[in-house]
Amino acid sequence: MSRKIVILTEGYTDPHRAKTAISLIRYCREEILAVLDKHSQGRSCQDMLGVGGDLPIVASIEDVPGADTLLLGIAPPGGRLPVEWRSIILEAIARRMDVVSGMHEFLCDDEEFVRVAENSGARLVDVRRNDEHEVATGQGLREECLRIHTVGNTSSCGKMVAAVEITNGLKDQGVDAKFVATGQSGIMVEGDGCPIDCVVADFIAGAAERLVRANQNHEVIVVEGQGSLIHPRYSGVTLGLLHGLRPDGLILCYHMGRETVFGMDDHKLPSLERVLEFNEMAANFMHPCKMIGISVNGRNFSDEEVADECEKVAARLGLPACDVIRQGPDKLVAAVLDLKRRLGK
Amino acid sequence: MSRKIVILTEGYTDPHRAKTAISLIRYCREEILAVLDKHSQGRSCQDMLGVGGDLPIVASIEDVPGADTLLLGIAPPGGRLPVEWRSIILEAIARRMDVVSGMHEFLCDDEEFVRVAENSGARLVDVRRNDEHEVATGQGLREECLRIHTVGNTSSCGKMVAAVEITNGLKDQGVDAKFVATGQSGIMVEGDGCPIDCVVADFIAGAAERLVRANQNHEVIVVEGQGSLIHPRYSGVTLGLLHGLRPDGLILCYHMGRETVFGMDDHKLPSLERVLEFNEMAANFMHPCKMIGISVNGRNFSDEEVADECEKVAARLGLPACDVIRQGPDKLVAAVLDLKRRLGK
Repeated sequence: MSRKIVILTEGYTDPHRAKTAISLIRYCREEILAVLDKHSQGRSCQDMLGVGGDLPIVASIEDVPGADTLLLGIAPPGGRLPVEWRSIILEAIARRMDVVSGMHEFLCDDEEFVRVAENSGARLVDVRRNDEHEVATGQGLREECLRIHTVGNTSSCGKMVAAVEITNGLKDQGVDAKFVATGQSGIMVEGDGCPIDCVVADFIAGAAERLVRANQNHEVIVVEGQGSLIHPRYSGVTLGLLHGLRPDGLILCYHMGRETVFGMDDHKLPSLERVLEFNEMAANFMHPCKMIGISVNGRNFSDEEVADECEKVAARLGLPACDVIRQGPDKLVAAVLDLKRRLGK
Repeated sequence: MSRKIVILTEGYTDPHRAKTAISLIRYCREEILAVLDKHSQGRSCQDMLGVGGDLPIVASIEDVPGADTLLLGIAPPGGRLPVEWRSIILEAIARRMDVVSGMHEFLCDDEEFVRVAENSGARLVDVRRNDEHEVATGQGLREECLRIHTVGNTSSCGKMVAAVEITNGLKDQGVDAKFVATGQSGIMVEGDGCPIDCVVADFIAGAAERLVRANQNHEVIVVEGQGSLIHPRYSGVTLGLLHGLRPDGLILCYHMGRETVFGMDDHKLPSLERVLEFNEMAANFMHPCKMIGISVNGRNFSDEEVADECEKVAARLGLPACDVIRQGPDKLVAAVLDLKRRLGK
C-alpha cells in the first residue's frame, strides 16, 4: 500500500542536513505529497533542495489533508530530534499520521509521543531501532554473489546515491542486482536494510554479514557505505561494515571541491590516493578486494567543471570516474561488470 | 567499602573465556573470597586459572556465607549469559548478594532477575550498560597529557594487562599515570572507564574522546585496547577507539605462538610488521603517533622461550619488547618515558 508522505525539513534545508529528504524525493517521488517547512513556503522545492521540481512546500500539516505519514527528513550528527519539531510531530500523531524517523533518539522512547500515539492509533517508526546481537563468523557467504561497496573520503559525499544509481544501471542491463541499504535514508528508500551506525559496537561486522547473507541470492549486491575510514567520528562504523561485508570491489566517492571533513573544518582531508590505499589495505585483511571506480559528486559545479574533474581524477588514479547524477552511472556499471567477468561470478 | 566477592566461572575456565576472573584475581585479590565452579572443586585456583594461589574453589554459594557480591567471571564472544548460570544468579540475588556482570545481555533487562532483586534488595550491576550519545569533536584535548594506547593483532592477547602493568611501572617511577579501562574486566578492576564495545556504533569515537577528557588531568594515560584493527568481529570498535583517543604512542601486544584469530581458526593472522604498519597508518590520520614497544604474552611457554622470543621480535621490529608478567614492564615504561621526553610532555 502506497504511503502519502509529508516530509519535514523545517529549518534544516542545507543539503547535508536534509539529505534524507533529498533521497526520498529523488527515489520515492510518487509517494511524496509535500515538504513541510514554513520558512520556505512559496519557494520551489527544486530551488530549496535541488530536487523535486514543483513539489509543494507547505507551512502546516493542515495544508495537506490527504497525508497519512510524516517523515523526518534530516540526518544530523548525533541524531537528536530538534526540540522545535516536537509540536509538529505531536500534531501529526494526534491526526493519526504515522511518523517515520531516522534519528538516534527514538520516538518510541518518548513517553508523550507514545501516549498520544496510543490514543490516536498512529504508528511510530524508528528506522534506526534494531536488535543486532550476533558477532561476525565469516561463514555462509555465497561466493557466486558479487559484493560491491561504496566508500568515501568523508561523510555525506554521495555513497548512497552512487550505490542506488549503480544498482539501477545494472538492472537496466538485465543483471539481477540489489541495492543494500545501511543507513536511515537508504532504508526509507529501499524499504529494507540495516541501520549499521546504530548497532551495538561489538556487532557491527556481524550485522553487516547478516545483511549480506539476507541478500546474496542476487547476482550482484551494491552495499552503501557509511562515514569514512578516516572520519574522526564514524570510522569505527565504516571499518566494521567493510570487514563484515568482505566486498570484492569498492567504489570511491568524494565531493568535488571539499577539502575538510564536513562540520569539522580543522580536519583536512588527505589525498584520494591515501584514502584509496587505506581502504584497499583494510579490505584485503578479510577478502581480496580492489578499488574499481570513482564516483564524483559535482553538486555546485558546472557540467564542464564536473567533466573536467572526472577526466583528471580518472587519469590520476587510473580508474573510471563519473558523476552518477550528471552523467549517469554507465562507467561504474561497466567497471562492476568487468570485475564480475574477471572473477567468474 | 570493600566488596566480598565470589567469582563465578562454572564450566568456563579456559583462560580466554575466564579472562575477567583472571584479571580480577590478579589485580583485586584482597576482595575475592572464592571462585565458584563445582566442576573444579578441590583443584587449586593457581592450577585452574594460572593465578590466585590457594584461593578456594567452591561448589556452591552456600559455602561462602560472608560473600556480598557475585561477579560473573567470563567474557564470551557476543556476551550472552550461559543459561545454566540462571539458577546460580537467582540464588545469589535471593541471598541479597549484588551481582556484577560484564555481559551484553543485561541483568537489568531480565524480568525475573529484577523481580527477585526488588524483593531481596540486591543490586544488579551491568558494567557494559551505558548511555553514550555524543559524536567526537576532536576538541578539548589537553596536549600536555601523554596518551598511550595498547593495541593487538587479535582479541584476548593481553592488551589490558599490558596497560595496567605499564601504568603501575610508571607510578613506581613517580609519574602521575592512570590506567584507563575500556572493557568490562578493566572497568571491574579500576572501578571506572567506558565499555566501548557496547556503545552505539556512531558514538564509539565520541565515547573514547570523553574518556580522554575525563582523565587527562594526569601526566600520562595508558588506555587499554579492544579487539584488533584486523579482527573480523571487532575491528570497528578498535578503529573508533583509536581515532577517538588520538594516542601519541602505541604498544603492540600479541600472544606468542598464536597464528590464527582466537575462535576463528580459518583466519590466519598477518605478520606483526603489517599489523604495525596498519595501526600507525590508521592512527596518523588523526594525530602523529608511533608504535613504541612490543608486549609479548608468553603464557604456556618457558622463561627461556619467552626471553628468546622477546629478543628476536625486538630485533625484527626495532622496538623494545618484553613479557610484562614474566619480566616486568620496565622496558615498556622506559619507552613511554622516552616518548614523553621527546615530545616535551
